[in-house]
Amino acid sequence: MSRSLAHPTREQIELPMVLDCLSDPTRLAIVCILAGRDRAATELRCGDFNALSGKSNLTYHFAKLRESGLMQTRVVGTARLMKLRREDLEARFPGLLDAVLASAARDAQCLQLAECELVAAD
Amino acid sequence: MSRSLAHPTREQIELPMVLDCLSDPTRLAIVCILAGRDRAATELRCGDFNALSGKSNLTYHFAKLRESGLMQTRVVGTARLMKLRREDLEARFPGLLDAVLASAARDAQCLQLAECELVAAD
Repeated sequence: MSRSLAHPTREQIELPMVLDCLSDPTRLAIVCILAGRDRAATELRCGDFNALSGKSNLTYHFAKLRESGLMQTRVVGTARLMKLRREDLEARFPGLLDAVLASAARDAQCLQLAECELVAAD
Repeated sequence: MSRSLAHPTREQIELPMVLDCLSDPTRLAIVCILAGRDRAATELRCGDFNALSGKSNLTYHFAKLRESGLMQTRVVGTARLMKLRREDLEARFPGLLDAVLASAARDAQCLQLAECELVAAD
């Protein structure tokens, strides 16, 4: 059984909220990991991000990412399956996500994203 | 006479701080205006932004923009002359500034940037 959580429509996604969301290193790491899996069209679960932060902190960040329009979350039973809203973001802000991801990848070490990449690659 | 204010070096400019800085609509408007003047290599003064917000609020935003590395400020006598650090930003985060500026221009009306554009065009 699947129940739906509130998400902004594509048109409701706002630039300031997206930039604010991406300005937090933990959320940026989550987005980098989701982007890595996105190419394989794989959804991720909350537990896949445990190396990044504590559970309640992650829950807060997941909600921010969903509410800003960066991430789609499906609830299936007790699991939450998450993926990046790449098409919606590209339609609203062409080139922005790729520019942020490329910059984050270049600065991965000083942003302390190294650990995230390991998690993403497993 | 010119005295210098503290600015981060190119290498010290950090992605999260830049994104956080751009996530505020007033600062985004300031950056859009600076970008418009940037092509003409013109520096702007504090007074050029008076239509955007109150003076003390603007002073706060100018400091944030300088400290994040988005903007260069020169103090000449009683004036502060400001310009965008486009080359530094492009070197650190290729494509990011242009993607943000293009998205902001598309969303100018809902971001209430219309007034800023008028100021920039005068």
